Amino acid sequence: MFESTRRVSVTRVRRGPLETTDDTAAVEEPMEVRLHGRPFAVIMRTPGADRELAAGFLFSEGVVHSNDDLGAIEHCRHPQHPERHNIIDVYLLGRAAAELDDHLDGRRRVLTNSSCGLCGRATIDSLRTRAEPLPNSLVIDKHAAAELPARLRARQLAFDTTGGLHAAGIFASSGEYECSAEDVGRHNAVDKVIGRRLLDERLPASQSILVVSGRTSFEIIQKAWLAGIELVCAVSAPSSLAIELADTAGITLLGFARDGGFNIYAHPGRIAGV
Amino acid sequence: MFESTRRVSVTRVRRGPLETTDDTAAVEEPMEVRLHGRPFAVIMRTPGADRELAAGFLFSEGVVHSNDDLGAIEHCRHPQHPERHNIIDVYLLGRAAAELDDHLDGRRRVLTNSSCGLCGRATIDSLRTRAEPLPNSLVIDKHAAAELPARLRARQLAFDTTGGLHAAGIFASSGEYECSAEDVGRHNAVDKVIGRRLLDERLPASQSILVVSGRTSFEIIQKAWLAGIELVCAVSAPSSLAIELADTAGITLLGFARDGGFNIYAHPGRIAGV
Repeated sequence: MFESTRRVSVTRVRRGPLETTDDTAAVEEPMEVRLHGRPFAVIMRTPGADRELAAGFLFSEGVVHSNDDLGAIEHCRHPQHPERHNIIDVYLLGRAAAELDDHLDGRRRVLTNSSCGLCGRATIDSLRTRAEPLPNSLVIDKHAAAELPARLRARQLAFDTTGGLHAAGIFASSGEYECSAEDVGRHNAVDKVIGRRLLDERLPASQSILVVSGRTSFEIIQKAWLAGIELVCAVSAPSSLAIELADTAGITLLGFARDGGFNIYAHPGRIAGV
Repeated sequence: MFESTRRVSVTRVRRGPLETTDDTAAVEEPMEVRLHGRPFAVIMRTPGADRELAAGFLFSEGVVHSNDDLGAIEHCRHPQHPERHNIIDVYLLGRAAAELDDHLDGRRRVLTNSSCGLCGRATIDSLRTRAEPLPNSLVIDKHAAAELPARLRARQLAFDTTGGLHAAGIFASSGEYECSAEDVGRHNAVDKVIGRRLLDERLPASQSILVVSGRTSFEIIQKAWLAGIELVCAVSAPSSLAIELADTAGITLLGFARDGGFNIYAHPGRIAGV
């Protein structure tokens, strides 16, 4: 079985004499994602929800667009492989399978197909415009929104023992908890919950809210947009580009959600009762 | 000039009536690193210390090994390019220049040259063993070590206004401040200070301490190891792999450095007075 935390020996330096004790650390290990047996990417992650992470990662990368593109997705079956728990084998179906070579070659093409003087622009634009702005199909009460971080926090079991894990959760517009994941990488935590929805054939995740335990980067808004999530709520600050992208994407972006209040950085119309 | 923070409009939801005000967000923008005019990587970063970031990134990636490998390193000189402030042109010298095609092709080779059944292992091993364990040439007093996070915090000008930036700093074993950097990406902040040392021809950074404002990942220890930094001090938790790698690398790893105390996770011998 996987472990998301591990016992470590630690020397505590405080006032008074030294104390050497056991403590708990968040596990970080590399996971290799293979497409049809061929290496595609290595992700540093906290073990657990590995299939979800692989599915969400491949969705964010544009390799799969729905659960229909996914055949088998499982840990390496080679019984002698010493790292089999850190390898996920993915088999694609239909169009995604037909595009396999493009995907394996994809990162290289991005790097080599653009011409000098335009490549910077092309690269930056390719980051921004990948989907239509989201519709307005969700409203959440101000008080329910303010409670979301505490509801996510209540699900962060490993954080309590390590202090070293990010969390992401999906909630209904009523504020009801749907699923969550923890990881040393905050983007991984988001990929895990979106991957869960993909495997459940529940994308786009309209009517759903993404809550993250830390800061909001451009990449988190990008993942939410692709997944059709109309509201992102974060405990800490958003970056400038996260705000810009949320504005473009039609995503309501909340930050500094703590102590019963929050800030709205984009599209306040989905918050009721204010 | 670059800006590391930007004014944004924010709607504050608290008890009482809504308030719409100006606030400050940490800037996040893509920076493209080109080698001899050819795109190599795009890094989401906070503008500022772009040359240092490019130098530190290329050092961490193994493209350059010292300042001798670096020719020009500067923002794109094309006056009409709309994104020239987000493009760094790097020209390599000597062996690094001779290996240019290998570097541009490098990521692809990692993905395609390994055979099934061994690739996972090979990939994971390639992450671990890139240098010799570091010597023991540094000792720092317990009290000086405990003060390091506050000394870094005093240099975090942008964090004070945004709450959204990570910081990394390099300090002497006396505790004296040498340099620091802020970024939305904590790995970028580390690349910026190590890049600073590289451009100053002051690598390996023996006798130096790396202080980071957040958690310690595998990748941060890896960067410290390559730079010859014997002690890493973090305000928050290390991951399990960070602890393992620090142990292997001969790096003293401190975590939860706050309130006048800290935890030692690896190689306590460099802390005096305990």
